[in-house]
Amino acid sequence: MSWLTIPRGSHFSLANLPFGIISTKTNPSPHPAVAIGDNALDLSLFAQKGGFDKLQAFPKDKISVFSEPTLNSFAALGRPVHRSVRQYLRQVFEANTPFPEVLKDNESLRQSAIIGLSEIEMHLPMAIGDYTDFYAGRNHAFNVGVLFRGAANALNPNYNHLPVGYHGRASSVVVSGTPLRRPWGQVLATPGDKTPVFRPSSRLDIELELGMFICQGNTLGEPIPVNKGENHIFGYVLVNDWSARDVQAWEYVPLGPFNSKNLGTTISPWVVLADALDHFKVKGLPNDVELVEYLREKREDNVVDIHLEVTLKTPKGTEAVITRTSSTNLLWSWPQMIAHHTITGCNLRPGDFLASGTISGTEDGTQGSFLEQTRGGKAPLRIGSEGEERKFLEDGDTVIIRGWSDMNEDELVGFGDCAGQILEALPPRQ
Amino acid sequence: MSWLTIPRGSHFSLANLPFGIISTKTNPSPHPAVAIGDNALDLSLFAQKGGFDKLQAFPKDKISVFSEPTLNSFAALGRPVHRSVRQYLRQVFEANTPFPEVLKDNESLRQSAIIGLSEIEMHLPMAIGDYTDFYAGRNHAFNVGVLFRGAANALNPNYNHLPVGYHGRASSVVVSGTPLRRPWGQVLATPGDKTPVFRPSSRLDIELELGMFICQGNTLGEPIPVNKGENHIFGYVLVNDWSARDVQAWEYVPLGPFNSKNLGTTISPWVVLADALDHFKVKGLPNDVELVEYLREKREDNVVDIHLEVTLKTPKGTEAVITRTSSTNLLWSWPQMIAHHTITGCNLRPGDFLASGTISGTEDGTQGSFLEQTRGGKAPLRIGSEGEERKFLEDGDTVIIRGWSDMNEDELVGFGDCAGQILEALPPRQ
Repeated sequence: MSWLTIPRGSHFSLANLPFGIISTKTNPSPHPAVAIGDNALDLSLFAQKGGFDKLQAFPKDKISVFSEPTLNSFAALGRPVHRSVRQYLRQVFEANTPFPEVLKDNESLRQSAIIGLSEIEMHLPMAIGDYTDFYAGRNHAFNVGVLFRGAANALNPNYNHLPVGYHGRASSVVVSGTPLRRPWGQVLATPGDKTPVFRPSSRLDIELELGMFICQGNTLGEPIPVNKGENHIFGYVLVNDWSARDVQAWEYVPLGPFNSKNLGTTISPWVVLADALDHFKVKGLPNDVELVEYLREKREDNVVDIHLEVTLKTPKGTEAVITRTSSTNLLWSWPQMIAHHTITGCNLRPGDFLASGTISGTEDGTQGSFLEQTRGGKAPLRIGSEGEERKFLEDGDTVIIRGWSDMNEDELVGFGDCAGQILEALPPRQ
Repeated sequence: MSWLTIPRGSHFSLANLPFGIISTKTNPSPHPAVAIGDNALDLSLFAQKGGFDKLQAFPKDKISVFSEPTLNSFAALGRPVHRSVRQYLRQVFEANTPFPEVLKDNESLRQSAIIGLSEIEMHLPMAIGDYTDFYAGRNHAFNVGVLFRGAANALNPNYNHLPVGYHGRASSVVVSGTPLRRPWGQVLATPGDKTPVFRPSSRLDIELELGMFICQGNTLGEPIPVNKGENHIFGYVLVNDWSARDVQAWEYVPLGPFNSKNLGTTISPWVVLADALDHFKVKGLPNDVELVEYLREKREDNVVDIHLEVTLKTPKGTEAVITRTSSTNLLWSWPQMIAHHTITGCNLRPGDFLASGTISGTEDGTQGSFLEQTRGGKAPLRIGSEGEERKFLEDGDTVIIRGWSDMNEDELVGFGDCAGQILEALPPRQ
């Protein structure tokens, strides 16, 4: 329990304390904060006013990390530092805090450094060097494979042996709330056509994913062993990897998706630290193949269990949850993805971003894309009770992904909203 | 002609003046320079000592761009600024310079700011936000397609309609001279096997490519029109996109190459500015399909004509040119690649890096990869006169890519070396 009011059911309980980058009217330069209940604690101001003086474990010559415009430098300090900072902040906010003079009884710092979430603007939490998108949601891979190749050949031969992944586009990762334009692109008017047409995408889709930021990297040529992968995880966000399916179908052979995903990737703004989710680790999907040695983990319960939901808001005002699923639908753990990513020598850097790939269950209403839910547009989805239907996204639609883990209603570890609205396509510039 | 001695046949003639990032014993912090003959002009020192005072066109409040550790800020000033700086420096070095007091007759600045290339260390010229690798070398795409699918289906249906490309890995781009370890990875011991083995790659290959850096970007959602693409080009480098073919064959379905390319991408250190190569524009390969409107260029001669060579040095001391080809073997121009990259709204940023894909001719000895030259390892290549053979790269091999355009021997516009050596694989860490 905290001396600060935290509404029951808040994603930002005392058990969470996620980190983000905010700006405010009084300090318009982006700077770090933690979320707690309906408020944020401005870490730049907190640090400047001596808030961390009691935290012996923190390297004092690194205090400037709390004044930077991204969390990269804080992340690069490593997991033991994140852990001690988060534990200390938790103590600061506890009802019977051992440090009341730091904030609880420090009226002037409370007034200036605790800011309502409605008063702040959120920014990308990290400067992303490289963004890698995996394909670790096996049900999604299977569902899509069935649509394209039938059930017998749904999963490719490599699927169970390695975490399939590809490089995404880092520049077009945007923070929740950023609207995106419906893209123009080359598409086939009818499947099997030999010549493409150029028009706005008519099969614009979502991809419900989980994302992870790297805190400390590795040297080029020196892979990260799977059982040390956990040390490289800073924390997690929710991801919507918007996808233009008609563009994708035409472009993706033989080098994979490109323009169909470049248009934007939305992430939730608060990074939930790895430690905050460590209580919620479970076994992922079973894998019956014998893995090659670099993917064999000692720890079996290494997939984070997060309840995930997708809500669609239409321009007519309909609002409905269209997907309810769980991150346990992943075949590969984050340490396995890290080990695989680096096995040929690739270097990761602080701030690099890895996403899980689309997360889907096996039942209707549990799939993380319209492609799956509508069988490629053949079975429109009913949205709400007014008879609205969707094959894919329409102009003005807003998609909100939410996710949380919980022991009980007072200890939610959640992400807040990962939201974005689709704006109508503009005519192309000449 | 210059008052500074420039050896005949130098890649760095007065017609070139490429930009790079150097460090020296006296200034170990990476900082900008231009190459001229066997020397570099230290731009940090030159600017600091008033070297640019005579250049009215340069924004004086931006002079700090010459003290930064990358060329990103200089690039972001835009093509007109690059043009005036390069023209001014050319005047400064001309035998009958209109500004003799700036450098020619300034003994102390000449002594300190002109440094032999053998005295400097080169660094990556740009901080690369995103790296995109295209597949614009049609002969390469065709040659590889024949190997995999036969001549009738060699090119995929989309190939002539759009510049196929995919996201590469920015973190593992390294500057010429950086050695790379032979990678371990999952491979199939025999093609068609159902289960992979884990071992060092035995089909390690090169990819001869041309690379291009973006100077100014675009806003997310606002594509760059093809006829304005040229304004976004900072300059060019040579590229070796090392590829583990056995890893690639197993991993790449359905999302494209990943670990097979992550191991490292080598680039030449000096960025040859777009203006320096503008005289060498020609038509690329003919394309008989009708392009959709956003790829139609007004300017037809828009592919840079650069002579390209690959030299292999073996541990036994053999050194031989194994490839001679030309960058005219590209189907797509850089403005077309830029227009395509951004058509669905993707934002480019200063320092983003685009590569052409492997450049190959149609004859033996003109192909930019071992995969093509040895027919997938079936026809070993003879290296030198001592009977050495190669299917793919062996430990200790050094690959040097060179490239230049020329009007005559005194006006070469070249890149210097793009070199890297393959070190033996290390045992995997646990």
